[in-house]
Amino acid sequence: MTSLAYKDHKSRPQSSQLEGIAERVKETAMELAVAIVLLAALVTSSHASSRVEDPPFPLPIHLLRPLSGSGAHRLSGVTCESWRVAVEANNMRGWKTIPRTCEGYVGHYMLGGLYRRDSAVVAGEAAKYAESLDLRADGKDVWVFDVDETTLSNLPYYARHGFGVELYNATSFNAWVMKGKAPALPESLELYKKLLSLGIKIVFLTGRTEDQRDITAHNLKMVGYHTWEKLLLKGLNVSGSSVAYKSGMRQKLEEEGYSVVGNIGDQWSDILGQPEGGRTFKVPDPMYYIS
Amino acid sequence: MTSLAYKDHKSRPQSSQLEGIAERVKETAMELAVAIVLLAALVTSSHASSRVEDPPFPLPIHLLRPLSGSGAHRLSGVTCESWRVAVEANNMRGWKTIPRTCEGYVGHYMLGGLYRRDSAVVAGEAAKYAESLDLRADGKDVWVFDVDETTLSNLPYYARHGFGVELYNATSFNAWVMKGKAPALPESLELYKKLLSLGIKIVFLTGRTEDQRDITAHNLKMVGYHTWEKLLLKGLNVSGSSVAYKSGMRQKLEEEGYSVVGNIGDQWSDILGQPEGGRTFKVPDPMYYIS
Repeated sequence: MTSLAYKDHKSRPQSSQLEGIAERVKETAMELAVAIVLLAALVTSSHASSRVEDPPFPLPIHLLRPLSGSGAHRLSGVTCESWRVAVEANNMRGWKTIPRTCEGYVGHYMLGGLYRRDSAVVAGEAAKYAESLDLRADGKDVWVFDVDETTLSNLPYYARHGFGVELYNATSFNAWVMKGKAPALPESLELYKKLLSLGIKIVFLTGRTEDQRDITAHNLKMVGYHTWEKLLLKGLNVSGSSVAYKSGMRQKLEEEGYSVVGNIGDQWSDILGQPEGGRTFKVPDPMYYIS
Repeated sequence: MTSLAYKDHKSRPQSSQLEGIAERVKETAMELAVAIVLLAALVTSSHASSRVEDPPFPLPIHLLRPLSGSGAHRLSGVTCESWRVAVEANNMRGWKTIPRTCEGYVGHYMLGGLYRRDSAVVAGEAAKYAESLDLRADGKDVWVFDVDETTLSNLPYYARHGFGVELYNATSFNAWVMKGKAPALPESLELYKKLLSLGIKIVFLTGRTEDQRDITAHNLKMVGYHTWEKLLLKGLNVSGSSVAYKSGMRQKLEEEGYSVVGNIGDQWSDILGQPEGGRTFKVPDPMYYIS
């Protein structure tokens, strides 16, 4: 990474503008009042930047300069935002914990509005796709849901464990699972209800193990997932990758005469591997990685 | 989408804070000066939020409330940021243009620092992966690069055509291609050099057609891609999806004795389909979609 250079075009002009404003406003109270209004507009627009019309182009920015030498600074690390998008696009693989410096960023992402908006986009696309399907008459169309961070949320647990900055601890995580208190991911619950209303049956396919069947079923029902065709948990003696396990289980579903019309999960290992199902959906999850 | 609710937890307290500040600062110039400093810090931190340490948890935010009723507003559309991430994660498919309201957002993304930082993360991960490979002794290890928006950038063209808000126009786009003036995507050029230095050969695999071979080769050389094992362009009579075409060409490479150790492209259709290659990398591209 260190050999790749970039320059943050935006931050410098912004802060020098602010310093300039700060200088001038010392002169008179009237000028200060005007500056306050300008700054307030600036803050508002910076927070709403993804939803407002931005100023017209062209901007005074050079296209794709190779940035090196005295004017540029080297990329000494990955910013948390780029890291998160790289995770979502399956470019960042095999990581054990989130970058230590990203604990605050990931926490804000998960607890703020962005995680919920991102989840809503995925669930919304899935609902649109489901509505477009010509379903079979035999009632064997199924939609596969992963459980953790797709159907149920372990955010209450992860919020107490650094949002993924701590190494996975099976003992404490399983103790949390056995409480059966995980809330629904609200956007996925809406999708679930939508799919049922369309006549699509639900299969939960999880890496949770058979000894967690009762508490998982209880937890699912408690938060609104009141029915399903199958709840598939992992045998205690099953080993191998999640991709191999989950694609094998989908293959089995197909062999039993089901048609997997959709498949949704927070891990790429929920999604990759044949058969994939009619279409796959990746729910955001910047907190952990399962291969 | 309209049935999925969310609440933007951040925007409301922010703007009411500002109004509160605006009230108070009318009283004295001293108070105004203090407020300016506070606001400047606020603006700075909001712009640098992904790189600074955030305040400690817990925040006073409820986890995963189902947001509906009088306190919540419905998601009437997709925010541009969530839309872009959904594109990168292959959740948003088959779109012909970017959302009209996102022209400014996508323009700023492409021309500002974020596109370059996102590209650097992908190229950096690819370089790390390449360094970890045990290469064969026969010199038949190849890395497949897509051309447009992966190796060469058509940003100068798209900046003049609404960053994807206009429908694709083959005539004007091909006229741009025939100029042979597309710059390199600097991060991909660095990756290219890195791969060559490791002894990996380069195969360009593009949806550009055979009649564009000479100008494409000229353009590639002009911007620094001085050598390659193969430049594979599409026959003028080839039809079908990009996935079928590109995976078929990779299959042919494998049959010729090459080992595709890596594969990088800006479209999921560059990446999906067997054989995928040893590992795939998705370069960001929020401007267009090719199935």
